[in-house]
Amino acid sequence: MNLIYLLDLCAVAVCAITATLEARRRELDLFGVVVIAVISGIGGGTVRDLLLGRLPVYWIHDPVYVVVGMVAGTLTFFLGRRLRLPKNFFLVPDAIGLALFTVIGTSVAMQLDVPWLIAALMGVISGVFGGVIRDILCNEVPLIFRTDLYATASFAGALLLIALDRSGLPHSLAILFAMVSTVAVRLAAIRWHIHLPRLRSDA
Amino acid sequence: MNLIYLLDLCAVAVCAITATLEARRRELDLFGVVVIAVISGIGGGTVRDLLLGRLPVYWIHDPVYVVVGMVAGTLTFFLGRRLRLPKNFFLVPDAIGLALFTVIGTSVAMQLDVPWLIAALMGVISGVFGGVIRDILCNEVPLIFRTDLYATASFAGALLLIALDRSGLPHSLAILFAMVSTVAVRLAAIRWHIHLPRLRSDA
Amino acid sequence: MNLIYLLDLCAVAVCAITATLEARRRELDLFGVVVIAVISGIGGGTVRDLLLGRLPVYWIHDPVYVVVGMVAGTLTFFLGRRLRLPKNFFLVPDAIGLALFTVIGTSVAMQLDVPWLIAALMGVISGVFGGVIRDILCNEVPLIFRTDLYATASFAGALLLIALDRSGLPHSLAILFAMVSTVAVRLAAIRWHIHLPRLRSDA
Repeated sequence: MNLIYLLDLCAVAVCAITATLEARRRELDLFGVVVIAVISGIGGGTVRDLLLGRLPVYWIHDPVYVVVGMVAGTLTFFLGRRLRLPKNFFLVPDAIGLALFTVIGTSVAMQLDVPWLIAALMGVISGVFGGVIRDILCNEVPLIFRTDLYATASFAGALLLIALDRSGLPHSLAILFAMVSTVAVRLAAIRWHIHLPRLRSDA
Repeated sequence: MNLIYLLDLCAVAVCAITATLEARRRELDLFGVVVIAVISGIGGGTVRDLLLGRLPVYWIHDPVYVVVGMVAGTLTFFLGRRLRLPKNFFLVPDAIGLALFTVIGTSVAMQLDVPWLIAALMGVISGVFGGVIRDILCNEVPLIFRTDLYATASFAGALLLIALDRSGLPHSLAILFAMVSTVAVRLAAIRWHIHLPRLRSDA
Repeated sequence: MNLIYLLDLCAVAVCAITATLEARRRELDLFGVVVIAVISGIGGGTVRDLLLGRLPVYWIHDPVYVVVGMVAGTLTFFLGRRLRLPKNFFLVPDAIGLALFTVIGTSVAMQLDVPWLIAALMGVISGVFGGVIRDILCNEVPLIFRTDLYATASFAGALLLIALDRSGLPHSLAILFAMVSTVAVRLAAIRWHIHLPRLRSDA
């Protein structure tokens, strides 16, 4: 459990960092950037907890999540311009973060005995809603509705976790396989530009 | 109660279909369209349940709502371009859906003994907030703030339901009259372009 | 406690009035303006209650808050164009409202024994999230992410309240000092254009 907790905090930090880098294009002040960084990191799990009625939400009694998001956002704010990172530096950490949020969200919902489809949705919501709220705050159509298999990778991972868990596999192994599959689908989609069918505007 | 349940699912489907048709103008992929369709269908009742503290929200233990939204969204995604429906094909189903969500939301709140104004607001929120969230996700000023008596029809129906219920009418009759009045106000507003006073920009 | 309640209602009214004046630039109808006015007034406390799990949210059983927001919004809608108020007429009432929402939100969270950082965040959320939701509904990047020390004044006031309370000062005195400090920081920031460091777009 301690390893999961540490990885969870790392995923919050990665989310906060990438959100700060994206918020750069807007003229936001330090406070705005840090808020958006924190919300990106903890927003998905917060929406999940609200819908499931697990209240108060998970970070109320454990401020470490908020602190990690604030520190990561602040450091990136001041160092971000200095460091000229290659554009795809965060693709792999981001995919791992997505996988981690997905399996944690799905596991939490499974413990509450909700139907499997809903458990999988809670995994997807945990994985992607931080980014959705970030994009709404930045006044953009959420990226995940347009990007290569981001939420789909999360959904596939959540379904795999549930299937493996029902098949009697130990939960830790099921989590491992689900995470690997989420990361693999996501990175393959980026590498070969695989995406779902799109609606072209014909209006 | 079974009839209400069936009608409720139909209203979710209608919301999902119209949302998909509207999402067409954006370059969204299949996932994005389905998410927006589902949220349009269940968003209003979800916000109502959160505010009232009825947790977990209503669709967590009954995935049929989500399934109906997903199926309706997916079918519309693939068939939507094929079928060239007349522009106002959905105006009547949409008005009935609005009426239904309104009376369900108001009834739910009345059972919790909240003040009548709040019960009416919960009816309006159930009726219109799915569309509000849809428009926020699509990065538009919510349509209901600009459109002909949409939320007003819902508000009037909710108030009528409460008044009739207090006057001692059987609840099922009160619901029927409230729904008819909501549909009538909405369709009359469309037919004769009745709307509330608007602020013209003088800035 | 009665004085706090009255001031709280006044703060809701001020929020609703300023929101209506800002909504002027959009072509909204009466309903849209009133909804945005009410949400601006009660949105911050609502998000706080959701996150803390204080459900149903505070205005469900006390409709006075909603009524005050509706009346203030409606009156401003009809009189707003007539009255040509000086541009900075509401700066001081607005700063007092921010201070009041902040200390109420922080106090509520302190009573639930949450960590001090989280209590301070709940103060900030109570103070500023009404405006955040207003700006999202109006399809703008929330103003507080760009404006002179608005949220920062709230954060400083919340921290001061917690520190003074822990130092053994009577709670009412701590609240007074925290409010004065919030108002002072906010007004000083406006007067001398003090702001946090900003990211300039270099993309």
